Amino acid sequence: MNTPETTGARVLRELMGPEHLERRKKTRNAFNAALQDYSEEVCFGRIWARGGIDRKLRSVVNIATLVALNRPNQLAHHIDGALNNGCTVEEIQEMLLQTAVYSGLPAASDAFRIAEEVLRARGLL
Amino acid sequence: MNTPETTGARVLRELMGPEHLERRKKTRNAFNAALQDYSEEVCFGRIWARGGIDRKLRSVVNIATLVALNRPNQLAHHIDGALNNGCTVEEIQEMLLQTAVYSGLPAASDAFRIAEEVLRARGLL
Amino acid sequence: MNTPETTGARVLRELMGPEHLERRKKTRNAFNAALQDYSEEVCFGRIWARGGIDRKLRSVVNIATLVALNRPNQLAHHIDGALNNGCTVEEIQEMLLQTAVYSGLPAASDAFRIAEEVLRARGLL
Amino acid sequence: MNTPETTGARVLRELMGPEHLERRKKTRNAFNAALQDYSEEVCFGRIWARGGIDRKLRSVVNIATLVALNRPNQLAHHIDGALNNGCTVEEIQEMLLQTAVYSGLPAASDAFRIAEEVLRARGLL
Amino acid sequence: MNTPETTGARVLRELMGPEHLERRKKTRNAFNAALQDYSEEVCFGRIWARGGIDRKLRSVVNIATLVALNRPNQLAHHIDGALNNGCTVEEIQEMLLQTAVYSGLPAASDAFRIAEEVLRARGLL
Amino acid sequence: MNTPETTGARVLRELMGPEHLERRKKTRNAFNAALQDYSEEVCFGRIWARGGIDRKLRSVVNIATLVALNRPNQLAHHIDGALNNGCTVEEIQEMLLQTAVYSGLPAASDAFRIAEEVLRARGLL
Repeated sequence: MNTPETTGARVLRELMGPEHLERRKKTRNAFNAALQDYSEEVCFGRIWARGGIDRKLRSVVNIATLVALNRPNQLAHHIDGALNNGCTVEEIQEMLLQTAVYSGLPAASDAFRIAEEVLRARGLL
Repeated sequence: MNTPETTGARVLRELMGPEHLERRKKTRNAFNAALQDYSEEVCFGRIWARGGIDRKLRSVVNIATLVALNRPNQLAHHIDGALNNGCTVEEIQEMLLQTAVYSGLPAASDAFRIAEEVLRARGLL
Repeated sequence: MNTPETTGARVLRELMGPEHLERRKKTRNAFNAALQDYSEEVCFGRIWARGGIDRKLRSVVNIATLVALNRPNQLAHHIDGALNNGCTVEEIQEMLLQTAVYSGLPAASDAFRIAEEVLRARGLL
Repeated sequence: MNTPETTGARVLRELMGPEHLERRKKTRNAFNAALQDYSEEVCFGRIWARGGIDRKLRSVVNIATLVALNRPNQLAHHIDGALNNGCTVEEIQEMLLQTAVYSGLPAASDAFRIAEEVLRARGLL
Repeated sequence: MNTPETTGARVLRELMGPEHLERRKKTRNAFNAALQDYSEEVCFGRIWARGGIDRKLRSVVNIATLVALNRPNQLAHHIDGALNNGCTVEEIQEMLLQTAVYSGLPAASDAFRIAEEVLRARGLL
Repeated sequence: MNTPETTGARVLRELMGPEHLERRKKTRNAFNAALQDYSEEVCFGRIWARGGIDRKLRSVVNIATLVALNRPNQLAHHIDGALNNGCTVEEIQEMLLQTAVYSGLPAASDAFRIAEEVLRARGLL
């Protein structure tokens, strides 16, 4: 018998796709379990599950944040998520171009390279 | 005879209001003139003036970026601008709450304090 | 009739003192309520309430983090909390001196100034 | 005849193990020699050699700092050093989990991945 | 018939060499074209093309900035550019050593490793 | 009888002026003494005292670094120091303008404001 899906797991699945959720389960171990639970319950179950702004806007917040924070691994995931959430390629291009002004050109250059990899993997470039 | 308004000055006026533009002019001096021109021509005339995403989305990009970059002066301006661009108080609240997960709770706490000041100055809190 | 104290409120009271909790309640409003709940339930109720390391070690983690993140408001609170958690003045001095090597001298200089204010307010300097 | 070991070299050897010291010597060249001396004499000979807090606490300061500063190479070394200094796997897990709240989830996610690699290399995961 | 070289392309070619410009053209695509134009026109055509300080000093500004911002890809390019602009290996060594004090030892350690790769590729180490 | 001036104190005096050194002495206390010694001996006595690049170039490194690191207190000191080291107002303006491209416009805007205060205090604006 399956345990019912948590809110966080549902949001994460809708955002990143079922394969992402499967990969997470396979990398779960005694060391990272508490972080995976935190991510699922706090990040996705508590914050992403809220109303107030739609998921596309949440993706925009994350992309801008991750460019500024210099976190390429998470940025790739959230560009993927943004495309799943209805962002177009042109919208992602515009957001990243705007980060050149505020987070600086080196941040934007790295972000474009990461976005190109995500777009190529999806056949969008 | 007045010189015609530049694209950047127009966008800046629409985003931040005519008083903001007046204050900028008054603080202009020999030292900061090149930066004011850069801001008007590159930031507002070249990037903010582009299509592709609407101004509300550009405000969202900036708020998330400025929280992550720890730049309270600019964050206050762009929360103000976001309200001018059609963001609601609830939307700003949701964005800032989301930064607690990604940029961390100290970043979000500082951002809420700054936002509260902007909202109070506009009679929205 | 009082509602029973939550785990997070209890940890926060033990860490920062009852006056801190009172000040928080007074600044609570419709805009920041969701962040205060997040802080109380996630930060203090979920993470600080865990075992595994004692609270003094959690204070050390926070002080080092807040120096690196450049968040003076929170750093002042957590230096206060560290003293409540059993850190000595000498231990705080040593930690902050070590941040000069890793986070850089400007970060450490700002941190010492903040710590001196906290120590003076407590009559420890 | 050998030159006597400096204080910094001794502390570095005790913290990171003799193999680490050997690797350092092999990578020493005309360009990086001044940095290696700075590291040995200032970081390890002057700061790590101080009393006031024990080495385990110094490792905690460093892990929290390096997560916040986004420096994966050094973080891996200092997780290794923390285990040599008497930190348990559970303590490292708790510290890193706490960074999710303060430095943000992307910082903690990257840090867990780095820690897992260190733990696997030591047969601890 | 060729279009005449823009100011930005000329500065970029003089700074990074003609091969760098060729590589840029080959990686240009519909997604990154706007960023490449921004870089060429704003960064190189508008800022690097200015007088006031010589190019060597501009390289120094960039190296220090990119160490602090933790952007290794761009740092490698600008160490290369600095050598083209007349910086000596010893000058780069001194600048990077100084970043150990201000940006912290982990930043300087990463920067030295990147600089060593650039120097080796040019046969200077 | 006076103790002879250390190398670090001499460099610091030459860079920041004798009044700066006097102010430092007056703020020295049991808590910050170890940091003041670290600053004098490591930062000024060991690094700034080196040859290889002249002091003006060291000031340039620091200004770019402090803009990127978001450390206004130290930035003000080092803009002052740069003027003492022979940087002209125009050179400082150019450097700060360049940081708009790399560290981003918000960083440059804050830096210009700080520089204007320093220049006004010296009667240069």
